[in-house]
Amino acid sequence: MASLFLIGGFVSLVGFFNNLAVENIAGVKFVITSNMMLAQRYWMAFLVFSLSNLALTLFAAIITAFISPAAAGSGIPEVKAYLNGVDAPGILSIRTLIVKIVGSIAAVSSSLLVGKAGPMVHTGSCIAALFGQGGSRRYGLTWKWLRFFKNDRDRRDLVTCGSAAGIAAAFRAPVGGVLFALEEMASWWRSSLLWRAFFTTAVVAIVLRALIDVCLSGKCGLFGKGGLIMFDVYSANVSYHLADVPPVLALGVIGGILGSFYNFLLVKVLKVYNLINEKGIFYKIFIACTISIFTSCLLFGLPWLVSCQSCPSDASEDCPTIGRSGNYKKFQCPSGHYNDLASLIFNTNDDAIRNLFSKNTDTEFQLSTMLIFFVTCFILSIFSYGIVAPAGLFVPVIVTGASYGRFIGMLIGSWGNLSHGLYAVLGAASFLGGSMRMTVSLCVIILELTNNLLLLPLIMVVLLVSKTVADAFNGNVYDLIMKVKGFPYLETHAEPYMRQLTVADVVSGPLQLCHGIEKVGNIVHILKTTMHHGFPVIDESPHSESPVLYGLILRAHLIALLKKKAFLCTPVQLGADAFRHFSSDDFAKKGLGNVDKIEDIELTDEEMDMFLDLHPFTNASPYTVVETMSLAKALILFREVGLRHLLVIPKISSRAPVVGILTRHDFMPEHILGLHPSLVRSRWKRLRFQFPLLLKIF
Amino acid sequence: MASLFLIGGFVSLVGFFNNLAVENIAGVKFVITSNMMLAQRYWMAFLVFSLSNLALTLFAAIITAFISPAAAGSGIPEVKAYLNGVDAPGILSIRTLIVKIVGSIAAVSSSLLVGKAGPMVHTGSCIAALFGQGGSRRYGLTWKWLRFFKNDRDRRDLVTCGSAAGIAAAFRAPVGGVLFALEEMASWWRSSLLWRAFFTTAVVAIVLRALIDVCLSGKCGLFGKGGLIMFDVYSANVSYHLADVPPVLALGVIGGILGSFYNFLLVKVLKVYNLINEKGIFYKIFIACTISIFTSCLLFGLPWLVSCQSCPSDASEDCPTIGRSGNYKKFQCPSGHYNDLASLIFNTNDDAIRNLFSKNTDTEFQLSTMLIFFVTCFILSIFSYGIVAPAGLFVPVIVTGASYGRFIGMLIGSWGNLSHGLYAVLGAASFLGGSMRMTVSLCVIILELTNNLLLLPLIMVVLLVSKTVADAFNGNVYDLIMKVKGFPYLETHAEPYMRQLTVADVVSGPLQLCHGIEKVGNIVHILKTTMHHGFPVIDESPHSESPVLYGLILRAHLIALLKKKAFLCTPVQLGADAFRHFSSDDFAKKGLGNVDKIEDIELTDEEMDMFLDLHPFTNASPYTVVETMSLAKALILFREVGLRHLLVIPKISSRAPVVGILTRHDFMPEHILGLHPSLVRSRWKRLRFQFPLLLKIF
Repeated sequence: MASLFLIGGFVSLVGFFNNLAVENIAGVKFVITSNMMLAQRYWMAFLVFSLSNLALTLFAAIITAFISPAAAGSGIPEVKAYLNGVDAPGILSIRTLIVKIVGSIAAVSSSLLVGKAGPMVHTGSCIAALFGQGGSRRYGLTWKWLRFFKNDRDRRDLVTCGSAAGIAAAFRAPVGGVLFALEEMASWWRSSLLWRAFFTTAVVAIVLRALIDVCLSGKCGLFGKGGLIMFDVYSANVSYHLADVPPVLALGVIGGILGSFYNFLLVKVLKVYNLINEKGIFYKIFIACTISIFTSCLLFGLPWLVSCQSCPSDASEDCPTIGRSGNYKKFQCPSGHYNDLASLIFNTNDDAIRNLFSKNTDTEFQLSTMLIFFVTCFILSIFSYGIVAPAGLFVPVIVTGASYGRFIGMLIGSWGNLSHGLYAVLGAASFLGGSMRMTVSLCVIILELTNNLLLLPLIMVVLLVSKTVADAFNGNVYDLIMKVKGFPYLETHAEPYMRQLTVADVVSGPLQLCHGIEKVGNIVHILKTTMHHGFPVIDESPHSESPVLYGLILRAHLIALLKKKAFLCTPVQLGADAFRHFSSDDFAKKGLGNVDKIEDIELTDEEMDMFLDLHPFTNASPYTVVETMSLAKALILFREVGLRHLLVIPKISSRAPVVGILTRHDFMPEHILGLHPSLVRSRWKRLRFQFPLLLKIF
Repeated sequence: MASLFLIGGFVSLVGFFNNLAVENIAGVKFVITSNMMLAQRYWMAFLVFSLSNLALTLFAAIITAFISPAAAGSGIPEVKAYLNGVDAPGILSIRTLIVKIVGSIAAVSSSLLVGKAGPMVHTGSCIAALFGQGGSRRYGLTWKWLRFFKNDRDRRDLVTCGSAAGIAAAFRAPVGGVLFALEEMASWWRSSLLWRAFFTTAVVAIVLRALIDVCLSGKCGLFGKGGLIMFDVYSANVSYHLADVPPVLALGVIGGILGSFYNFLLVKVLKVYNLINEKGIFYKIFIACTISIFTSCLLFGLPWLVSCQSCPSDASEDCPTIGRSGNYKKFQCPSGHYNDLASLIFNTNDDAIRNLFSKNTDTEFQLSTMLIFFVTCFILSIFSYGIVAPAGLFVPVIVTGASYGRFIGMLIGSWGNLSHGLYAVLGAASFLGGSMRMTVSLCVIILELTNNLLLLPLIMVVLLVSKTVADAFNGNVYDLIMKVKGFPYLETHAEPYMRQLTVADVVSGPLQLCHGIEKVGNIVHILKTTMHHGFPVIDESPHSESPVLYGLILRAHLIALLKKKAFLCTPVQLGADAFRHFSSDDFAKKGLGNVDKIEDIELTDEEMDMFLDLHPFTNASPYTVVETMSLAKALILFREVGLRHLLVIPKISSRAPVVGILTRHDFMPEHILGLHPSLVRSRWKRLRFQFPLLLKIF
């Protein structure tokens, strides 16, 4: 509970600080350039704008590339893989945390079309992981009273809570955060976890509220109402009737198609980036700089294309806008006029979303503006994601979705009862649904963002339609990115061809065995020659002529035993006495990245000839399956119980007592289809429309 | 998807019809009695009121007791047990469905303090189960094109969606419904289930909205704004600051204590009722009638105790009220006055909650009124639950919580910034949290009920505090009721003492085995002499001297084989040819309650001497554990994978190939502690304050 409280507190502080910094850095930038524009020094304004953007991007790219490459991108796929059991190196380290926080502030401030929600989820997860392993030993930051979580499951639970806190802090959506962690992140879920996540996000909600109370008094610089994303679109009487259903359904269908197309393009671009990135660190930074300059040119250039609008006489704020806030940007227009595209594009993403969602602004924007803005956002968000800097996907997807939603609302015009702002909300929902494929969590996040529960039925319909449509084409964007990154993510369901295989068809040998009482030299040999993480322990049984399976011992525990050097001169069983030399801490799961290596242990030749009694340190109840078990059933056991090793025993015990060990990699479709190529044809369990095929038609 | 659509549609229709009927029946009753009160015919009014209540209660009790006793009570514990794998008879039959719908309308209309949410959950689950088994064969209502779901898992998923739809229809809370199904009902959860439940509740939300649109034109009799529970407490600027935190925390603590005390008393009363009910059906009905008369007396008598209030001059509605709606009940007061207790107590529960939640009514109620109302609700809701009629717990808990919340709000008075209506909402939240112990789902349900997202942080705090406090005393109310009912509910976590036991310590023999090719007579003998649902199948192996485990065959499949009488004259293996006589439908899981019995199958002596090849019909990949496996680990496997039978195999295979079969009952704490009484002391894994002990102190 103390950990959860601290996680919630820290994540909300980081979230608040993040917002504060972005609003102030981006705010100062926009104030300076806007003032230059007012003075008609256009080239100077462009220079300042693009150079400051370039500097910020360069900073984010350099710290990411040199200090922690794991901090690049959204972080959600990495955390999702971690929660599935994939320990990718450096993902949750303290370096990544710092780079992620600082880099995300720089990247978002630099007017790149990247979000902060994904980085916040990653940040939350890092903070949770650090608390979970009691701080970082490498940097001397350890807390003795926090060292409770020395196993995978408890750490995973904490990281799940951290990711929930991340969303809660990014969007001020505590319930949405819990649901996001449940629907998208967690691979295993228990009801006690639900309640822990809820506690964490409650802390976030309360701390954020207190901090905002502090800022309302105006002490936070340019951090005004614009800070801490929350797009209040409440209008007392949102009324909608049957006539509004067809456009809403259409929005859902379009969102589904656009969302899946977005995913398809994003993955293609990511693969191209990966090819370039492999050439070296400077290529990575070069791409980032190119995208930054390209973005600056677009943002500064496009507003010149649209015609100026004359200020409405009943405008509730200054028109044209002076200074930071306010949304009637003058840009190049004569006085008494404003540039509606500049109001959207020459602004922070949060303000753009707020403008798009706002009600009573049906006359503020032109149709062409909305179309240009949509196309710009769609393209920029695809090209901005893959650069070597912390970059989220949520906000870009919301902006893009809101712009086309509003565009469609303007096309429908007075046929419907809904305001253009509502169409923008529904458009954002449909594009989120089409790209991220969540349902309940997106629904609640959007409700919490817009603070209007009356929209609920419409948002539900839009999300369901867009997800259904998009699922016909491809998978959820995070799963696609995980596949590009090559994480061995274990799916919940078994593929149909797994029913045709038995466990014996995929398990690979030859197997390394330990005996219950083993020579130190043999153990060292086994550890040095294989990279496996678990080894079966067998005993010569007096009751049976063949050896008997005793259990499973982990590589980490063998190394801990070798490190202690509590060896025996003769091969005898020790019993409970064996624990005399050890504390429970010796066998605790180490923090990520601090694994002891067998090469680091120096042993004399004498020691090599001594013995170790492995019995007390062996897991005597490993899960086992018979070699004739269907692979699909073995996968269910492996996945549901959350195993790392699954022992395969023979059907008839006249042979060795173990046939092999199944690990995560043995269940990967690529591995299985590599062993059994004839199954490839039956792999596609459902017909999916393939985009490349569709593209060939045109 | 078609099934989900139909489930959503039907559940929302039932929910709507339910509300419509209750509002009209109870409305007519209140209009008639109010008119008599206006004419000062008090005794006549009491007679009409109490007799109509008695008649309605009697009707509900009689149909429940004689037609479907399974329809009594809330239904949530039963459905929760079903979703955990307990097939109690008659729980999801068509009889239960009809009795539940009709009985719930009668019970709620009869002014008993019972809710409709629990019955709606049960109704939704029944509808889902009927669709899942393709209708009811017994009543000739079958749909061919719906017969897709012939296995437990798919049916369970449908029932989960049905329960979500039930909450969605009862409270117009679609997201809350999904979360309720996830947090409280479901024992196994997959993300595809989340999306199915979301789809179902989206259908409910849309259908309900359309039906309400129809009713807004006034065609639904007395079903006005009062129908379909939704307590709109939106006020544009709910502001709260640090000073409001202590009273909110206090509310949470009190809610936790009261909620757990409520659970404690409810279970005690339920046990007493069970003792009386065992004596016969007429005792059951007698209790119901007694409670009804007692309730009528209280509801009619108590308002005389409080002093009349003079009508406010700026009242927005008629004061005193005339007719059905309106909340300034005149009761016995002189004209120009109203009775504030009658406004709460002499009304439907929905209207009482709406009054308590309403804003700008801080002067409407007296402190004594609120206290009397709270005590009445607390007592009545405890005594009303156990009667033999459909009776939910949600609404009584909300009323009780709201009344003491408002009471505390009045005590605090002007010290805080919150209105009394908000205190009522928070009180309801705290009492719900203290009694039902959900977090996210209650939070969302309350938000959806009150339609005010700004309350979120306060509600989260209250729920967390009350749940934490209450968990120190006892368990969640539904779990306690399940325990009273004796359902073998399988918990997610293993008790600590299970780590000290191995599987061999609890598995019981002697075991009935089948051979791969077995004599019909032996099969009949095995089926007749045991009640087991699964039997291991063994083969004499040519490669090994001892027999080999082939797999597990289900009782239902053996009976299906015997029914077909496709016997062999000689003991030979058939292979795939064996399926010639069978269609997949023969082995489909039958609907609940239509299990074929071995006694119904007539076999001649000749047939008894023939053979059956069981190989093609045996599950050749059953999950197995070694007898030395720790019981805790076996439980995790059993629970996570969702098994009904777990085969135990010997460590050393010189003996028989199977040691025994573990079923759900072998994992029940009662069973294990019965076998190993020495473990009883270690049973209490955490210190809980015991109420009886506390009561002894006073």
